[in-house]
Amino acid sequence: MAILDSDKLVQDFPILSQEVHDEPLVYLDNAATTQKPIPVLQALEHYYRTDNANVHRGVHTLAERATISYEAVRKKVADFIHAQSTKEILFTRGTTTSLNWVAHFAEEILQPDDEVIISIMEHHSNIIPWQQVCRKTGARLRYVYLKDGELDIAGLKELIGPNTRFVSIAHVSNVLGVVNPIKEIAHLAHEVGAYMVVDGAQSTPHMVIDVQDLDVDFFAFSGHKMLAPTGIGVLYGKQELLERMSPVEFGGEMIDFVQEQTANWKDLPWKFEAGTPNIAGVIGLGAAIDYLNELGMDAVFAHEKNLVDYVFPKLQAIPGLTIYGSQDLSKRTGVISFNLDDLHPHDVATALDYEGVAVRAGHHCAQPLLTHLGASSTVRASFYLYNTPADCDKLVDALMKTKEFFNGTL
Amino acid sequence: MAILDSDKLVQDFPILSQEVHDEPLVYLDNAATTQKPIPVLQALEHYYRTDNANVHRGVHTLAERATISYEAVRKKVADFIHAQSTKEILFTRGTTTSLNWVAHFAEEILQPDDEVIISIMEHHSNIIPWQQVCRKTGARLRYVYLKDGELDIAGLKELIGPNTRFVSIAHVSNVLGVVNPIKEIAHLAHEVGAYMVVDGAQSTPHMVIDVQDLDVDFFAFSGHKMLAPTGIGVLYGKQELLERMSPVEFGGEMIDFVQEQTANWKDLPWKFEAGTPNIAGVIGLGAAIDYLNELGMDAVFAHEKNLVDYVFPKLQAIPGLTIYGSQDLSKRTGVISFNLDDLHPHDVATALDYEGVAVRAGHHCAQPLLTHLGASSTVRASFYLYNTPADCDKLVDALMKTKEFFNGTL
Repeated sequence: MAILDSDKLVQDFPILSQEVHDEPLVYLDNAATTQKPIPVLQALEHYYRTDNANVHRGVHTLAERATISYEAVRKKVADFIHAQSTKEILFTRGTTTSLNWVAHFAEEILQPDDEVIISIMEHHSNIIPWQQVCRKTGARLRYVYLKDGELDIAGLKELIGPNTRFVSIAHVSNVLGVVNPIKEIAHLAHEVGAYMVVDGAQSTPHMVIDVQDLDVDFFAFSGHKMLAPTGIGVLYGKQELLERMSPVEFGGEMIDFVQEQTANWKDLPWKFEAGTPNIAGVIGLGAAIDYLNELGMDAVFAHEKNLVDYVFPKLQAIPGLTIYGSQDLSKRTGVISFNLDDLHPHDVATALDYEGVAVRAGHHCAQPLLTHLGASSTVRASFYLYNTPADCDKLVDALMKTKEFFNGTL
Repeated sequence: MAILDSDKLVQDFPILSQEVHDEPLVYLDNAATTQKPIPVLQALEHYYRTDNANVHRGVHTLAERATISYEAVRKKVADFIHAQSTKEILFTRGTTTSLNWVAHFAEEILQPDDEVIISIMEHHSNIIPWQQVCRKTGARLRYVYLKDGELDIAGLKELIGPNTRFVSIAHVSNVLGVVNPIKEIAHLAHEVGAYMVVDGAQSTPHMVIDVQDLDVDFFAFSGHKMLAPTGIGVLYGKQELLERMSPVEFGGEMIDFVQEQTANWKDLPWKFEAGTPNIAGVIGLGAAIDYLNELGMDAVFAHEKNLVDYVFPKLQAIPGLTIYGSQDLSKRTGVISFNLDDLHPHDVATALDYEGVAVRAGHHCAQPLLTHLGASSTVRASFYLYNTPADCDKLVDALMKTKEFFNGTL
């Protein structure tokens, strides 16, 4: 397997060569969004400078070129996550929209006393749509909690039962960085006839995804967390389910024929894509997938593992630093949430910013998890393919300086 | 008022300098989507090369810069359409999403026997959401038709009554190019206590919009039809209505506090913007508005009027060419739909493409209108600020050649 040369890769990301507060930028906020390599920027530029036109509806040359490029990316996405068919790939605005669409499907199915199971480590985008749909349908929303900083699989097995209709779980937690055993959970869900929904926002950018091997029913992810532009995401669904699912938005592009009082829909995947799509976003997503494929997702995953193996013990060695979630590195990806002494996470993040280190502080759109952990907020450092061991050192040094600064002034 | 120098402006649009089938490209498909000037491309490039970060949630420098830039565009949009406050400006994926959100609001209000009035010239995005919401609520969807190729205002006055809850009309028809008297219609709607909704997709790029003067309740438009990137749109709503309206998508960014079974929302405008928005799309929209403001929307409107005044009689003079809609040029904007002899519109568009002229052929996502007009499809030429009288001449010449070619071969 190829090893990433991040010192070289970093040259593909012009934004990373800047200074912040007179320090070289070390960008460790990749769970929020990722930077874009030159080939992605060039793909956007090329699209707008040569091919820009509305898709599907045009017979002129630009429209044909735009349509071919747009639909070619659907095939790339299908291949990237090992879907059976391009009919299973819907372009959305992002993971949030994708998960809302699944909840909309659930609304057509759920009955009072049915149950939806999610985990306490979900992002708000995989919580609130389910709260809403349960409120509307009378179904119950149930949580699986943690054990040793990981998903409590034994607890899940107790929860899951004949009333379970949907199980919706993050593939990787955006706070704890732990990888959840989706294949095993999907099997448990299917045993009771429930649908398996996966929030893949934090896994798809970082590892090989095979929706057929995982045997999930729905899988959602965002482009902007995997080198692609903002405003584009994907909902994968098994074809048989998408055939039954009603469109969520209505308008042009998704119809077959419209009369004054009725309309019928196009075939998959277009029946879901009302209105002019984010064409350039799709083109950019295609370029991002090309870039990732060239590196190899195995290599991307291994690189981030190496970084975590390198930095985790150094962080653990900082006195007063508490890392949340499993301490078993074999279960973790490049997302590390922590607190330092009793410093406010925002103060820590601000201090790190003065050292050029960009991390996130807050509830990370996972308030039920933070409540469960007994923390109102944390600092989060999250790594990606362009991060280097030197970035890890810089993080540790900056944390030590922060500690000294606050201990000196407090 | 400044006059546009389109021969100079065209240099800002690199895509227009290409050849198609060995002919210089003449892009007349602007009602479908518009091309992007260099300043918009530069704004995208600059954002991704210097500031790219997730908005609102970050304390680090890039996140602060991205947030400030993002929210500054909301102010630009508010000013551009003369909204009272940035709280009234919601960023969406496009006009289609915006109109779907309004229909979602209508679903909370409409009762059986309530009525929604739309026009026969609506785009599918302003038809199908209403069909759906009427089907769900038992409300009735009623149509106002045409008189002399314009909206039949007398007919509308007869339709409108105490049961009318929503009137939703295109500001400019994407097929006929006629401008509808929105201010007058809004007054009629408000007299009976109905809400006035406007599909501004075909007006906002081309004329001064003043939502307060028009006194509309909701106003929807898309960025990509006004020089901005794909995947970004706006829903304007009066603040008092948006306060009452429920969010349509649920997730991060739009919440105030989330517990396991409940969540409450942020204040306007954020309560509607779940998940990571199309940040770069918003930045690009801001650059597009700057570009339009520099030209002046009065000048843009006058320029397109001049083009139509120039080309319309030349088109009328082509034997066998039928132009749809009002022949009164004072009512028209730069969208002209026509058919030539009994040639199939797709054949005409293909023939024009061989002359380098990009036009659209089809039903233009307005099948009820085409059915009403007795045409299954039309050719549509649509102009924008970078089009020139020479483009008009090229269109007319290419149509004459097309006519000769098919008459010779038929």
